Amino acid sequence: MNQTQTYHVKDITLADQGHKNIIWAEQQMGALLKIKDRFTKEQPFKGLRVGIALHPTKETAVLVKTFIAGGAEVALCACNPLSTQDDVAAALAKDGVKVFAWKGQNNEEYYANLQHVVNFKPHITIDDGCDLVTLIHQKHSELIPSIIGGCEETTTGIIRLKAMEKDGALKYPVMAVNNLDTKHLMDNFYGTGQSAVDGVIRATNILLSGTTFVVCGYGPCGKGVASRAHGLGANIVVTEVDPFKALQATMDGYRVMPLADAAKIGDIFMTVTGNKHVIRLEHMKQMKDGAILANAGHFDAEIDIASLKKDSKETQIRPSMKQYELNGKKVYVLADGRLVNLGAAEGHPSTVMAMSFCGQALCAEHIVKHKGNLKGVIEPSKEMDRHIAQLQLDAMNVKIDSMTEEQKKYMQSWQEGT
Amino acid sequence: MNQTQTYHVKDITLADQGHKNIIWAEQQMGALLKIKDRFTKEQPFKGLRVGIALHPTKETAVLVKTFIAGGAEVALCACNPLSTQDDVAAALAKDGVKVFAWKGQNNEEYYANLQHVVNFKPHITIDDGCDLVTLIHQKHSELIPSIIGGCEETTTGIIRLKAMEKDGALKYPVMAVNNLDTKHLMDNFYGTGQSAVDGVIRATNILLSGTTFVVCGYGPCGKGVASRAHGLGANIVVTEVDPFKALQATMDGYRVMPLADAAKIGDIFMTVTGNKHVIRLEHMKQMKDGAILANAGHFDAEIDIASLKKDSKETQIRPSMKQYELNGKKVYVLADGRLVNLGAAEGHPSTVMAMSFCGQALCAEHIVKHKGNLKGVIEPSKEMDRHIAQLQLDAMNVKIDSMTEEQKKYMQSWQEGT
Amino acid sequence: MNQTQTYHVKDITLADQGHKNIIWAEQQMGALLKIKDRFTKEQPFKGLRVGIALHPTKETAVLVKTFIAGGAEVALCACNPLSTQDDVAAALAKDGVKVFAWKGQNNEEYYANLQHVVNFKPHITIDDGCDLVTLIHQKHSELIPSIIGGCEETTTGIIRLKAMEKDGALKYPVMAVNNLDTKHLMDNFYGTGQSAVDGVIRATNILLSGTTFVVCGYGPCGKGVASRAHGLGANIVVTEVDPFKALQATMDGYRVMPLADAAKIGDIFMTVTGNKHVIRLEHMKQMKDGAILANAGHFDAEIDIASLKKDSKETQIRPSMKQYELNGKKVYVLADGRLVNLGAAEGHPSTVMAMSFCGQALCAEHIVKHKGNLKGVIEPSKEMDRHIAQLQLDAMNVKIDSMTEEQKKYMQSWQEGT
Amino acid sequence: MNQTQTYHVKDITLADQGHKNIIWAEQQMGALLKIKDRFTKEQPFKGLRVGIALHPTKETAVLVKTFIAGGAEVALCACNPLSTQDDVAAALAKDGVKVFAWKGQNNEEYYANLQHVVNFKPHITIDDGCDLVTLIHQKHSELIPSIIGGCEETTTGIIRLKAMEKDGALKYPVMAVNNLDTKHLMDNFYGTGQSAVDGVIRATNILLSGTTFVVCGYGPCGKGVASRAHGLGANIVVTEVDPFKALQATMDGYRVMPLADAAKIGDIFMTVTGNKHVIRLEHMKQMKDGAILANAGHFDAEIDIASLKKDSKETQIRPSMKQYELNGKKVYVLADGRLVNLGAAEGHPSTVMAMSFCGQALCAEHIVKHKGNLKGVIEPSKEMDRHIAQLQLDAMNVKIDSMTEEQKKYMQSWQEGT
Repeated sequence: MNQTQTYHVKDITLADQGHKNIIWAEQQMGALLKIKDRFTKEQPFKGLRVGIALHPTKETAVLVKTFIAGGAEVALCACNPLSTQDDVAAALAKDGVKVFAWKGQNNEEYYANLQHVVNFKPHITIDDGCDLVTLIHQKHSELIPSIIGGCEETTTGIIRLKAMEKDGALKYPVMAVNNLDTKHLMDNFYGTGQSAVDGVIRATNILLSGTTFVVCGYGPCGKGVASRAHGLGANIVVTEVDPFKALQATMDGYRVMPLADAAKIGDIFMTVTGNKHVIRLEHMKQMKDGAILANAGHFDAEIDIASLKKDSKETQIRPSMKQYELNGKKVYVLADGRLVNLGAAEGHPSTVMAMSFCGQALCAEHIVKHKGNLKGVIEPSKEMDRHIAQLQLDAMNVKIDSMTEEQKKYMQSWQEGT
Repeated sequence: MNQTQTYHVKDITLADQGHKNIIWAEQQMGALLKIKDRFTKEQPFKGLRVGIALHPTKETAVLVKTFIAGGAEVALCACNPLSTQDDVAAALAKDGVKVFAWKGQNNEEYYANLQHVVNFKPHITIDDGCDLVTLIHQKHSELIPSIIGGCEETTTGIIRLKAMEKDGALKYPVMAVNNLDTKHLMDNFYGTGQSAVDGVIRATNILLSGTTFVVCGYGPCGKGVASRAHGLGANIVVTEVDPFKALQATMDGYRVMPLADAAKIGDIFMTVTGNKHVIRLEHMKQMKDGAILANAGHFDAEIDIASLKKDSKETQIRPSMKQYELNGKKVYVLADGRLVNLGAAEGHPSTVMAMSFCGQALCAEHIVKHKGNLKGVIEPSKEMDRHIAQLQLDAMNVKIDSMTEEQKKYMQSWQEGT
Repeated sequence: MNQTQTYHVKDITLADQGHKNIIWAEQQMGALLKIKDRFTKEQPFKGLRVGIALHPTKETAVLVKTFIAGGAEVALCACNPLSTQDDVAAALAKDGVKVFAWKGQNNEEYYANLQHVVNFKPHITIDDGCDLVTLIHQKHSELIPSIIGGCEETTTGIIRLKAMEKDGALKYPVMAVNNLDTKHLMDNFYGTGQSAVDGVIRATNILLSGTTFVVCGYGPCGKGVASRAHGLGANIVVTEVDPFKALQATMDGYRVMPLADAAKIGDIFMTVTGNKHVIRLEHMKQMKDGAILANAGHFDAEIDIASLKKDSKETQIRPSMKQYELNGKKVYVLADGRLVNLGAAEGHPSTVMAMSFCGQALCAEHIVKHKGNLKGVIEPSKEMDRHIAQLQLDAMNVKIDSMTEEQKKYMQSWQEGT
Repeated sequence: MNQTQTYHVKDITLADQGHKNIIWAEQQMGALLKIKDRFTKEQPFKGLRVGIALHPTKETAVLVKTFIAGGAEVALCACNPLSTQDDVAAALAKDGVKVFAWKGQNNEEYYANLQHVVNFKPHITIDDGCDLVTLIHQKHSELIPSIIGGCEETTTGIIRLKAMEKDGALKYPVMAVNNLDTKHLMDNFYGTGQSAVDGVIRATNILLSGTTFVVCGYGPCGKGVASRAHGLGANIVVTEVDPFKALQATMDGYRVMPLADAAKIGDIFMTVTGNKHVIRLEHMKQMKDGAILANAGHFDAEIDIASLKKDSKETQIRPSMKQYELNGKKVYVLADGRLVNLGAAEGHPSTVMAMSFCGQALCAEHIVKHKGNLKGVIEPSKEMDRHIAQLQLDAMNVKIDSMTEEQKKYMQSWQEGT
């Protein structure tokens, strides 16, 4: 491998299946295709190189093709060693994209691939977790003058970027794509809601009706998980550390109690807190024989698997389910405590990613349009959110109203208090 | 009537029934009673006069008693000519509160009563719509030096206060009680949600199952109304002017369409937009025979009743329902297009008001504690919200978790991005 | 009063309001109006007298007018001393119907009014609880030869009639209107479901969100009540004596437990069992301060009010709510333990009654058409059920499919096992 | 292979994985394990041979072990050429069961395996679709004298048996296990409901939120599918040919319309009618680009795939999803129109099968207990249903009430009409 290498994927002969999967993704991503159509005409990225470190999935392929339609050259690597869909990577490679990604990279390979994208000398960086920005700032500051800006997909990445900004260390502007309502409110509630429950069912084939389903954390993800598990007939118990969220859960008709109590009655436990060691050995020891544990939160730290492994006998029962014998009882952990919607199901559905990636596409365009006038971590505008929402509504063929002149005047006068 | 007059209510002999209703309210307002208990010990309002312009209901009575328990003297008038519960006013009067309120005041009486409260020379003003603050600033600026601050219950009032603040016209600090999550998120979604649907049922006794229920506006109130009508078996249609809210409604499983289309298929229409002339004559002419119209939004301007009256024959069918014959069809308007949850039902349940009034009590205490150090319109803190939520959880006997030391550290490190 | 008297109502000047209420009922009863239209043309009851003992409500008025449109003469009395709507009775009387009914009849008056209808020498009897049939069989057997048949509205009435039939005591045929699916499945689940919860809200104005709502009995009524209370945000607990119903409740996502346990955690209790002394003093003593008790089951026997009264201090707090102080705690009983949907709300909505009364109208027509060929208690046919369902769908403007010839053949062959 | 052969499975080395899967099934099948425990003590099948033709799954393995625990010898074949779980078959074979089953048998193999079970000379036959009963009656009537009776799992089988009974052709008694409420009400609504929607998600990974989901047929299966798809955020449209079911769907808050109209607006279509050619080419031509078609009804006849194939270009996109290009649009068919819950997901969850197989075990026991006194097709008793429900409640650790003596007397007197 050297800088001129065109691609590195697992098996280029998978390209045909990859193309089929991309077609299927496009079928659910009409909102992004609308942007792609416009980009085709307007060529906002003409002559620009876009370097992307995202999960190389069929949906990301649609984003890549959107940038290319807009005139860009693209290089793509993975933002996670396990998340590449090899057939999709092959399809993109076959179509001439500089793809450096395959499922199951080791640490060295992972960083080598990232380096390939940096070597591509991108004018725009697209990150999911801030790895490109970090690598460039730490080891390739010579590239910074030619970089117009970046886009960041995740909360975690934005937190890092803000820390850099605070320290005066962030040397080019980055848009906080995650902060669009059409991104985080959609993927947290609807995306995680469905896919986490889907993960549980695929991993276990358990009937949710009649079970007691404990949701640890009642933020947007937790609300989504609770709503979907409830929609499948489960009886929901919520645990929280924040009184207001606990109050909302109560008012939404769910039971709320400390995990120490919930541990004794739950059939299924799902952590969605963003915190660590939420479910601990002390809780697992209280659980009923047959209890199922899964995580759809931040990292695999939410369930203390390490302590469980120490004290118990482990058996792999189904592909994404391990049994632990503990004190004469059995508990079952899904996807090793990693994100169950990725580990046991297929992550966010394409529709959710369509909205996320509309944000990526429009934020990248914004950066180019305002080249030289931006700095720091930039919040996308409400107008962009409304535009993306409108694109998605169009894709779903939903029509809405608009205010009359009289109403606009009334709202203005009213909100101005005159 | 003069400044020394003790009270003016409709009929002091109603006091006994008023006391019973107050007891019933207290049964649902455990959170506020906890504050009352503490105030009894701590006497934060000792020697202070609190002037209140709120709806004189059984729940307000519990707030009044909370201030008195805390050492205050209280004068009370209504913030709306129609909203006084005469039995409750009588009960408070009998207990020695300076009450100047009855149901069905004319304009002159309304302002005379407001004046009584101003004449009481309050140290603290409690407003629902900014009338006390306005009257004092416009006509009694001599009182301002002795006023410690105020509290405002509503969005409308806060908008006015912010306009005053912007113009440098606001001369004493006022806390934006409405902006507490425990206030507006609770009363909008859960309070309006239930009570608006309750208003429809009380006004019409219609079966909601199987009806098409059109909700105009998908803000927090609209979400609440949609959720409750759906929970009673209605098929929900949402109309919106905001693409993101329209998208949320679609994702929540509801149909979204322009009102011009919804008009033709709806059985029941509920406006909750905060705008005017949302349902216009052009829509009503398209409606099915038997369509029902109600408003749970801002003012009675949301449905254009005036135009309807001009073109149709009106008949009062039930106490809160009028029939209009229009083009050979009949449409039915509830509570004359005023807030249907107040006009045809009993407004927010006591539990909702308990949380609102915890905010009033704690904001008033905050003003006193920080006397001299506050100015402008003041946002209550997240801590206050958490405290109120905790009080409400306690009242409902719900226990929650707290973070371990390890978790606190993790969250801090994570959110700080180090 | 004598046999030739035309009517006896409370106040004939209420007729105008009664007519308005009847108009409102007709607006919801399109299915029955379709039958009325046909009867107007076909005159199935020409020259016949129909004697009716039903609740004299606005919906019953629409049924009465349907019989009259079909050529019948009608006499009407109440089947319950408290259930007459006096304005509706006045309106019918003014229109020439022989009405003998007012709200608040004593026992003697009640039977005198029933006697008036018997004296009318009906060819067809319409009963709700079998009182007309019983009175005629016990005291006026001379009328039986001229009676073509009867219709019975309720389970209770049908049980009595079947007992009579078994003993050979039933001397004319009676149709079991209640057994139509369009009757009992609709009024139990949808009618009782909404109206019982409505009764609780009107009686208490309590917020259901966040409460624990205990439903005693998970038959069709209990399922309806649970569904509606849940739809308003309550957390449902079900108590049952039947394992299969308990299992369904569990699978439907509700908690199931013995009442002795539920008593300690419930905020609101609703009995819908058809049994007696379901909630007993032993349970009430375990309840939380502020617990609310209501019944939407069979009779006022489901809650043991008598024992409660003996041991506690009673205070009337709101019109349909009494407070009982018991062991230092307060429990609240709604509508004195009678049917809360009738006692505190307005009973079944018109739409539900439309379907019931389609059954009455069609069963009465069936009796006339098959005069002389019927005996005993007669089950209405599936065809009648389908016909009524179709009428209701038409009234709601809902279109459905029909089987193709190929499909009809397939279903036949398949179900015949060839 | 000859009559003395012990087993014929795909790969005996899969036994270890099979044992793990059986352990996992047992974890969800506590109700059946209770029966197994009792059988272990009571030995109701001591010395008897049980011949079974069911889907050889992990749940069936638990039933097989239940019979063995009760003293039986068991031979097992498949009732469908595709439904064997090879690892489970291996595990049973390793444990000494006479298993003749593997996934993907051809027609000849299928009947050879069935013949193996007949050659085993069973005293009791357990069928799913009546194949054993048919084979024995047609070709091995010499066995009938020694056969005590049979059990049948499905509606289809029972229809066939009743046709045989009607013709006097059924020569030994067979219990209609399917007719237990704990069987068909549970597997139709809860089992099919979850698994059919699960099948759609696994096949497509589509987001259900915001989609229009058309359910063709509103019987128990259709109600379950509608409930679960709705619970995941879809907007439900129901098509029906039966007015009463259509009315229920309307009252349940769903839209009902002819399929010709639904075809134009649906995103996903699910047939659950038991009829053929419900979705025809004429409908598919009206569908939106991207429409998804699946079947969870009776057979693969519900969608007219044959006509679709003729008129379109087929591409396999994902394992259980084919794309058909038709008139310039694409429609997607899941699992080739076969049962999507089996073809794209894992069929009924173990909990559902636990209840079914409690019925099988108890019916088989009933046959033995009443040997010689039974004939024809026998309906299981309500007591058996209650017993199974109680076992399932016990397995879920749910306690219920029982009637007091007073209540029993009241119910009896009331229901007897005295």
